[in-house]
Amino acid sequence: MEELDCFFYPESVAVIGASNQPKSIGKALLENFFSTRLAIKVFPVNPNHATILGKKAFPSVKSIPAKVDLAIVAVPAKAVPMVLRECIEKKVGGAIIISAGFAEIGEKKLTAEIQKIISKNPGTRVIGPNCFGVYNSFNGLNSTFSESRKMGYPKKGKVAFISQSGALGVALLDWISSQEFGLSKFVSYGNAMDVDESDLVEYFKRDKQTKVLAMYIEGVKKGRKFFKVARETSLRMPIVALKGGMNKETHNATASHTGSLAGSVEVYEALFRQTGIIQAYDLIDLFSFAKTLENEPLPKGNRVLIITNGGGYGIVTADQVVGNCLKLAGFSRGNEKLLRKAFPRTVTVSNPLDLVGDADDKRYKQAILAGLREKKIDILLVLILFNTPAIDKKIVKELIEIKKKAKKPLLVVTIGSEYTIERSRELERGGVIVFKYPSVAAKSIKALVDYAEFRRQNH
Amino acid sequence: MEELDCFFYPESVAVIGASNQPKSIGKALLENFFSTRLAIKVFPVNPNHATILGKKAFPSVKSIPAKVDLAIVAVPAKAVPMVLRECIEKKVGGAIIISAGFAEIGEKKLTAEIQKIISKNPGTRVIGPNCFGVYNSFNGLNSTFSESRKMGYPKKGKVAFISQSGALGVALLDWISSQEFGLSKFVSYGNAMDVDESDLVEYFKRDKQTKVLAMYIEGVKKGRKFFKVARETSLRMPIVALKGGMNKETHNATASHTGSLAGSVEVYEALFRQTGIIQAYDLIDLFSFAKTLENEPLPKGNRVLIITNGGGYGIVTADQVVGNCLKLAGFSRGNEKLLRKAFPRTVTVSNPLDLVGDADDKRYKQAILAGLREKKIDILLVLILFNTPAIDKKIVKELIEIKKKAKKPLLVVTIGSEYTIERSRELERGGVIVFKYPSVAAKSIKALVDYAEFRRQNH
Repeated sequence: MEELDCFFYPESVAVIGASNQPKSIGKALLENFFSTRLAIKVFPVNPNHATILGKKAFPSVKSIPAKVDLAIVAVPAKAVPMVLRECIEKKVGGAIIISAGFAEIGEKKLTAEIQKIISKNPGTRVIGPNCFGVYNSFNGLNSTFSESRKMGYPKKGKVAFISQSGALGVALLDWISSQEFGLSKFVSYGNAMDVDESDLVEYFKRDKQTKVLAMYIEGVKKGRKFFKVARETSLRMPIVALKGGMNKETHNATASHTGSLAGSVEVYEALFRQTGIIQAYDLIDLFSFAKTLENEPLPKGNRVLIITNGGGYGIVTADQVVGNCLKLAGFSRGNEKLLRKAFPRTVTVSNPLDLVGDADDKRYKQAILAGLREKKIDILLVLILFNTPAIDKKIVKELIEIKKKAKKPLLVVTIGSEYTIERSRELERGGVIVFKYPSVAAKSIKALVDYAEFRRQNH
Repeated sequence: MEELDCFFYPESVAVIGASNQPKSIGKALLENFFSTRLAIKVFPVNPNHATILGKKAFPSVKSIPAKVDLAIVAVPAKAVPMVLRECIEKKVGGAIIISAGFAEIGEKKLTAEIQKIISKNPGTRVIGPNCFGVYNSFNGLNSTFSESRKMGYPKKGKVAFISQSGALGVALLDWISSQEFGLSKFVSYGNAMDVDESDLVEYFKRDKQTKVLAMYIEGVKKGRKFFKVARETSLRMPIVALKGGMNKETHNATASHTGSLAGSVEVYEALFRQTGIIQAYDLIDLFSFAKTLENEPLPKGNRVLIITNGGGYGIVTADQVVGNCLKLAGFSRGNEKLLRKAFPRTVTVSNPLDLVGDADDKRYKQAILAGLREKKIDILLVLILFNTPAIDKKIVKELIEIKKKAKKPLLVVTIGSEYTIERSRELERGGVIVFKYPSVAAKSIKALVDYAEFRRQNH
């Protein structure tokens, strides 16, 4: 049992600051716990009410007549030290302090007081303050205070996501719920006064449900500790990071947000490079990289074959492939000859390999299998425009079958409305990643190539 | 009446090469015409069948006992010269040659023959060959051969879209149908043997239903002609262009695709800059720029205020704003003081202006109105995370009302699943543009700022 397991697998939870008041954090928190699928004992704590949401409430955590694994603290900032002391007396395993109003607004006295309590009592681990807490998609545990009627939660998956920013993290949880990939666990850790990014990376390195770690960070607290654990982790599984405050002008904003001591841009870029962390620059990249790294085998090189039934789509994609420092692969003479023979004259055997508008699933299959066989090709990027009369649903099943046996990365790009979106979902459910925009596909392949290179250089 | 009007407003159409054969282009073409809402006379032409899809067919265009405004030609390449001659004898106003197999596969003889016919007969204008033709969202005219059961068509709107690539163009039509913005007209013009990009730009410059022109081009045929008409047009309305083949390696692919003589990257970048064309580098940019330019007033400068209820979201967005050569605006002392007074202590009056997680619509309204008043701010970028308990639907109506009166660009960024998507759609229907990704929002604002600058320098 890991020390941080109490945050993800508690058997009993105290919600301190639980409330009946509409739109309050204390009400949203408790409702989210009540909707948890897992059989968890939940104890509302509020000294002013006998019941909260119809359930017996306790005046303090100490008055709960049972063991408490996890405490969720959502009380005014100035009450946090007292509540935290009570949690420690109660021997609570972990406490998540949701409350804000500390270092992020320059509140030094309260911050120092909490710091002192934490360092004197290492037996009770603390996440926060100024955070949203955790979500575990395998048991439904949800310590966030989002209104569940206004959001969805991710399905089970192999990507863990940790976020220094709570609101952003939860919005992304919501967005991920509409995608085909899933999450293992989510942690919003805010001001990181005890449990920090290094502890979390260390935890996920050993978490059996996690294959890729995605992170949003604004600053790293302990550089050396982070360097060591991040590098060790990258040698076992990919880490993708989006760093907020990458410009001189935005740098300062991180201090007032999560009280981070954000280092210079160059320091972070060097840190990421040396530890093998793949850097993302926008939200769309962060999760496109993560799902690609989770799903695809590591390529042997950076040579990409683009297959398409739309010439312009192929060219736009090729521009993105080249623009992201990837190479357009060629066929060896033998394979080129074979393909020329197999295809009608309108098909130019080149890269992009434009199968032209009347390409059917058979022509695609020939092209893809040739690409998988060809030694000069490392990665296949298959573009499909589903609106042409010659293409039908059959290609979805065939792609899924081919992908199962493929030893090279094989990704799809397509764009459209309902019919195309449905095909995309079928492909993703079958294990084939689909992108809508060529730029995102190319950047994701670059992330995969970079990580493969890091692993090759450090095996 | 404009010369090219026959392509968009025909009263009678001959579909030459109409077919009963499932999955054929000739069948898809005819079906799309039959589903047209407008009262257009449609004549199937096929020498081998008396009826096509249950309708009387004619052996040739000449045998049609009525005037023909527009001919759609979908016959094998080698039959195209004969068919084109017949169209000219019939005095057809315009012909769209869908058929492929010309310059794009190095077929010189047929290409030369068609070129000769076209130059001798300027009375019949020709779009294509190797194209998908036109779509007019105002009357439903659709000469493409996409299978309509597999795609949607854009609603009416003010963006015209011309594409050298047919399949890509149609896939984008389909995608646009799922978006809240609409199109006026679409043209896929392929090898451009007669009607070329310059003719089309000239046409849309005068088209009353078009306020922005979006284009996908692989090469420009007549540089001088294009320069002149593009510059004239840019002085009246924005043109956004995505150029395929922007790298040395991808450059050649455009020749085999649409037979383009693609100039060097530098030549095109200079051409775009000098003519005021806003350049896009990926599909997502092309239409994000177009819808922004269509919807927003021109800003006076590049100073952006970011308002948010999620600190991390604000910081990621600020990174993108700065990274795209825009400035983070500040407040003048008076306004800063007022805001400090109006907001709780947890709000730091800065940029991003983080209204923090408990911000409600009232706090947003105060911040936005202050931003609109402030002389040091040119553009407002409003980030909303809808999952927090304090935010509700009210903010949608209020934003729409504020936007109606606002004289500065005001754009929204939000991300989530169902609840958030529904709010986004409401906002867009109400005239407020919404982005999902900070990078796309920032690039779109940059496009707006660049176009405003071009207009200022050339008024």
